[in-house]
Amino acid sequence: MALKTLTSTPVLFLLLLGFSAASTPRPRPRPCKRMVLYFHDILYNGHNSHNATSAIVGSPAWGDRVTLAGQNHFGNVVVFDDPITVDNNLHSPAVGRAQGFYLYDKKEIFTAWVGFSFVFNSTQHKGSINFAGADPLMNKTREISVIGGTGDFFMTRGVATLMTDAFEGEVYFRLRVDINLYECW
Amino acid sequence: MALKTLTSTPVLFLLLLGFSAASTPRPRPRPCKRMVLYFHDILYNGHNSHNATSAIVGSPAWGDRVTLAGQNHFGNVVVFDDPITVDNNLHSPAVGRAQGFYLYDKKEIFTAWVGFSFVFNSTQHKGSINFAGADPLMNKTREISVIGGTGDFFMTRGVATLMTDAFEGEVYFRLRVDINLYECW
Amino acid sequence: MALKTLTSTPVLFLLLLGFSAASTPRPRPRPCKRMVLYFHDILYNGHNSHNATSAIVGSPAWGDRVTLAGQNHFGNVVVFDDPITVDNNLHSPAVGRAQGFYLYDKKEIFTAWVGFSFVFNSTQHKGSINFAGADPLMNKTREISVIGGTGDFFMTRGVATLMTDAFEGEVYFRLRVDINLYECW
Repeated sequence: MALKTLTSTPVLFLLLLGFSAASTPRPRPRPCKRMVLYFHDILYNGHNSHNATSAIVGSPAWGDRVTLAGQNHFGNVVVFDDPITVDNNLHSPAVGRAQGFYLYDKKEIFTAWVGFSFVFNSTQHKGSINFAGADPLMNKTREISVIGGTGDFFMTRGVATLMTDAFEGEVYFRLRVDINLYECW
Repeated sequence: MALKTLTSTPVLFLLLLGFSAASTPRPRPRPCKRMVLYFHDILYNGHNSHNATSAIVGSPAWGDRVTLAGQNHFGNVVVFDDPITVDNNLHSPAVGRAQGFYLYDKKEIFTAWVGFSFVFNSTQHKGSINFAGADPLMNKTREISVIGGTGDFFMTRGVATLMTDAFEGEVYFRLRVDINLYECW
Repeated sequence: MALKTLTSTPVLFLLLLGFSAASTPRPRPRPCKRMVLYFHDILYNGHNSHNATSAIVGSPAWGDRVTLAGQNHFGNVVVFDDPITVDNNLHSPAVGRAQGFYLYDKKEIFTAWVGFSFVFNSTQHKGSINFAGADPLMNKTREISVIGGTGDFFMTRGVATLMTDAFEGEVYFRLRVDINLYECW
């Protein structure tokens, strides 16, 4: 087991830089990398198998797998493979795929939990970024965690801000994702 | 890509503090933040839609979505939106919601895997803490990972100890969660 | 909230070690711990309940829970409790269990997303390692994130390389997992 360094670092700082108690909310550090991307989700509804990019795979007892369930879709689990674009146009060339799942988890309003990856394989980026967190999707912005990465994003961590950029009924939505990475290796 | 700092830090320590080989198990570092909270799960059983906070949304071929499956519930996936309280009373004011899923993943005994968030929106805390890990729930205590956070818990990491504080048949359980954060930004 | 140390560390490095811009791809750091392990998945197909270690628990509208769905299994969610061995022999003594889920998430080819833990309880290792990420399983090697750990693997992070070491139809597969940990506490 390698030396543990993180927890000892504060001591070092006290010695080298002097101690200053933070009594006010500290500003956020600057990200080591920023990216803004969009992804596009077209939910299978029984009639759009040609262009659907996601499908309901779990539902509560009161639901099925073709229509999102009552009670604000509570309990619906959706698996997706959505194109990622650099602008908000569904028909722009995809620079990668957003792959994973979301699930609706509140009866009273729409809110979700997500676990997914951005998988890149373009000239600009190779590798993946992994995300997890709560997505209270009725909020204009909401934050989830970047929990790791591979390839160009080896060992990264950060926070991603999700914004619903568009939606059309229960079939299409587009998310804007502002990725702010604070650990870059 | 920003400078990678973490892996170089040990070298710095060797220079500044001298090298000492750790031949005995090292004690755990002190957490930078500790919290003890409870959450309460009431599973939908077909007759309690009014107060249920969770529902079976996936089951193996031998199960359904109203009754937990045989073989120690192997394969049942449950989505939840559970109130978080500061004490062990279900009727105390909720300081947030535990949202996400758990799934039972062993045929021989009860054991689970969890992915969820604590979502706070109180005067005391704003933001979220994200958790993932194995929950061998027949053990008195078990540990899962804090994999990230947002808001007041920006970029945090740590370990949470789960304890089953109470359960009533297959409908209600209450978990005590001792959160120990070791990375605080 | 404890002092934030990580983001200030670069400044320290600039002072102590001098600044050098990294214009070429930097080599990866050395892992603080490496492990190579195998795990074995036997999918329930309606006829092998005795030795199956996993089961389909979610499927799209066009699938069921006994047979993997058409369109490259898109939407199938599988819960597993697989033995971990130190060599590639299913019948070697298990040193732990791989527990969690995988889901197939692309219509055109086989690809998956995984969330699981290695749960150890042997003389050699106690504790758990938690994993998440995209698994494009037709690639010879693919990388997922180690997002945390407990016990002997307290607070660890890293990258795991998955390789399909064997598969037999849709019932059995064996994965080799090369775990490289870069944060060891």
